[in-house]
Amino acid sequence: MKVNNQSFRTIWLNESNEKVVQIINQLTLPHSFEIVDLHTCNDACFAISEMQVRGAGLIGATAGFGMYLATLECPDHSFDSELSKHANNLKSTRPTASNLAWAVDRLLKRISYAKSPDEKRLMAKSEALAIADEDADFCRRIGQFGKSLIEEINLRKEGETVNILTHCNAGWLAFVDYGSATSPIYAAHDSGLPVHVWVDETRPRNQGANLTCWELEQHGVPHTLITDNLGGHLMQRKMVDIVLVGTDRTTRTGDVANKIGTYLKALSAKDNDIPFYVALPSSTFDFNITDGLEGIPIEERSQDEIRLISGVSSTTGKIDSVRISPEGTNAKNWGFDVTPARLVTGLICERGICDANEESILSLFPEKITDER
Amino acid sequence: MKVNNQSFRTIWLNESNEKVVQIINQLTLPHSFEIVDLHTCNDACFAISEMQVRGAGLIGATAGFGMYLATLECPDHSFDSELSKHANNLKSTRPTASNLAWAVDRLLKRISYAKSPDEKRLMAKSEALAIADEDADFCRRIGQFGKSLIEEINLRKEGETVNILTHCNAGWLAFVDYGSATSPIYAAHDSGLPVHVWVDETRPRNQGANLTCWELEQHGVPHTLITDNLGGHLMQRKMVDIVLVGTDRTTRTGDVANKIGTYLKALSAKDNDIPFYVALPSSTFDFNITDGLEGIPIEERSQDEIRLISGVSSTTGKIDSVRISPEGTNAKNWGFDVTPARLVTGLICERGICDANEESILSLFPEKITDER
Repeated sequence: MKVNNQSFRTIWLNESNEKVVQIINQLTLPHSFEIVDLHTCNDACFAISEMQVRGAGLIGATAGFGMYLATLECPDHSFDSELSKHANNLKSTRPTASNLAWAVDRLLKRISYAKSPDEKRLMAKSEALAIADEDADFCRRIGQFGKSLIEEINLRKEGETVNILTHCNAGWLAFVDYGSATSPIYAAHDSGLPVHVWVDETRPRNQGANLTCWELEQHGVPHTLITDNLGGHLMQRKMVDIVLVGTDRTTRTGDVANKIGTYLKALSAKDNDIPFYVALPSSTFDFNITDGLEGIPIEERSQDEIRLISGVSSTTGKIDSVRISPEGTNAKNWGFDVTPARLVTGLICERGICDANEESILSLFPEKITDER
Repeated sequence: MKVNNQSFRTIWLNESNEKVVQIINQLTLPHSFEIVDLHTCNDACFAISEMQVRGAGLIGATAGFGMYLATLECPDHSFDSELSKHANNLKSTRPTASNLAWAVDRLLKRISYAKSPDEKRLMAKSEALAIADEDADFCRRIGQFGKSLIEEINLRKEGETVNILTHCNAGWLAFVDYGSATSPIYAAHDSGLPVHVWVDETRPRNQGANLTCWELEQHGVPHTLITDNLGGHLMQRKMVDIVLVGTDRTTRTGDVANKIGTYLKALSAKDNDIPFYVALPSSTFDFNITDGLEGIPIEERSQDEIRLISGVSSTTGKIDSVRISPEGTNAKNWGFDVTPARLVTGLICERGICDANEESILSLFPEKITDER
């Protein structure tokens, strides 16, 4: 997508030195646009755990490139055992995102066919690039399928603007390109459909305020920032036509783990008869889990993410953080919640739109009926 | 309640000069404890509209004292017409809180029996004090009735800690003393029942993080700060036993206007079979309205309340604000939402606990059956 009218992905190989991976540092957005070089697998682990990169698809792509960087670091005589350590390090950076293990395992499986460490290194590069390209391609397809939902609403509203509510950032910054939840929005906007996005600020890390607003602004999509508390009121007043969110892990039965607070929006959508759709590439499914509340691990993060809020200081104009609570107040900070399938109207995947139940999901992904259980 | 072990109310007459009203400035809490003098009715209007004071009961009490200050300002020869202007100014400071008009009208009615401006001034002082005392007394009673709910849960849990979730600040800072939603908590804690409070930070103004955490800390009640997004997750995991909130206006049919985001918590409580109680003195009822969604005006506030967050700077240690969104991002900021009566388990009033429906409410307040419709 565009940044200051120049096309970017969120992660890529440095053109002049393919032993370096480059990412957009999402920690400084929207206040400053910075590119960070990753030289080692540890750099990739750091980028994931510190959330320089975040979001289901981008975590997967970064894990793929991290494995590629690992292959460059592993000496020939202990290649496999060293690589296995790197793989475990990568997998342990974030617990909830299923794309992480998926990408690492996919790359390991791919290079297991190679005959020498050098061949493995080449294959790893190729597979990391393939994971990234596929992510972008899947997101593009999600956009085409999801656009049809927006078109339908626009028709029903006789051409009036379609109001979409989204939570957190499931935008192109969360993937390699296009995004999941935002991809239908970009596709609709680009085809001339009038859309307007309500952007949940998404406490505690404010990815909505920081990232989704920035993305939509760069692409020229009309949007309004709101607190996470406002969505219910907007839905009661029929100011939301559809809710579109992403997911960090979705079970084979359609339970959706996504950024904390998503469940509350799903409840409100249900209560007000507003469609609630989840957009995801197939890499985000966890076909091994049937009960999201029981089976999906929920990451607990630092309480300082709640007590301290960062942004541009009104006094100095520089990035600073402010403490909002009394000193010493304890806080709890689980990063995700699980929206039960019963609250999900449908899932928008790269192969089409399905209902949030096992039968419908497997009708899109029949190859998963037996192979992962 | 206690501040640094000294007893305070939120509003009082200056002991040495009864022509001055004093308030705790809630804009600087929890970072600095400041007392502000109100000399005129305009000072009271400013305190309400700028939210130096806020919360249903305290807005009412401040309006009462504001009217008293107004009587000191009105010249004898045009007393009634001048006072009427002040009354209108006070009523227009905040649109949602029903205690505001209630207090102004109560005071006007009271002094209408007086025969001279001086007698009116005396009566106004007396009535303003009565409104404040009654607010404190009603809140104390709410605490006694509400405590019984916490006791029951504690018994059912065989003595284990009762986990209470609250939203915004319906604490003693929102009233004259004790608070509404917090009063049962203080009563339970003071009687030795083990309680723990999940405090929603309550964006955009963070009254939970700023005020409720501070109150509970000063009184020694165990509590944990959470984002507004977390409550659903906690309820799904059975980490909340009861939700206790306040209200800015409740209809005669039990629809509850309260701080934006309350409706989402009520939905989640319903979905997880957790009792959702609203605590209110009778002054917060609007017996003229039967449909909360249709009838209760919802205040829209400045978008900068969303874009800018204030607290103590990590760099300078001084109070500062930071901008969390890109420059120029538009935001929308409605301050309240309406929780339909069907989601409310019960209302805790100064006369007892009733169901959230007209029949049950009027059984507690039979004098309202005919007189206000």
